[in-house]
Amino acid sequence: MKIDRLFAALTAAVLAAGAANAQPAAPAAAASCGACHGANGVSAIPTTPNLAGQKAPYLESALKAYRSKDRVNPVMNPMTGALTDADIQALASYYSALPAGG
Amino acid sequence: MKIDRLFAALTAAVLAAGAANAQPAAPAAAASCGACHGANGVSAIPTTPNLAGQKAPYLESALKAYRSKDRVNPVMNPMTGALTDADIQALASYYSALPAGG
Repeated sequence: MKIDRLFAALTAAVLAAGAANAQPAAPAAAASCGACHGANGVSAIPTTPNLAGQKAPYLESALKAYRSKDRVNPVMNPMTGALTDADIQALASYYSALPAGG
Repeated sequence: MKIDRLFAALTAAVLAAGAANAQPAAPAAAASCGACHGANGVSAIPTTPNLAGQKAPYLESALKAYRSKDRVNPVMNPMTGALTDADIQALASYYSALPAGG
């Protein structure tokens, strides 16, 4: 009985540690971002910024500025046109949680 | 004599390692940037982006877009107005060389 309890406690601890270390799940909209910004949020294109570890409120304001065309960019304006506020919040939260520098 | 040579070699190796680990020198213009973007290029202000480890060509294009007012921002437009191309290149190179995430 004691061993059963120990095993259950260890299993729970291992699962909790796994959850803590897991990468956050990518929102569906991130599939388009990865083509230029890198699957891990670190871009392979010199003029395309890294997103990994960037501040979520900054990413959110940048995406909203692209969507409203306050910030003009021929790639990002159409890319963000159909995003909802919830999509933008999910993307900002996802990329900010990825490790800076990849 | 052999010990002298060993000592000289070790000294050179230590100096070289120190130089490799040293932070790049901040260009004079970076003094203004640090107030919002952080002395180490990691901002304490949620809506102000981190610069450390960002791609130099991206930083250069962002600074030029602020200078030309193609990218409109009430803080960054005046801040970049007097920067030369060489200033911008030095800033982009400096911040891209700082470790991402601080």
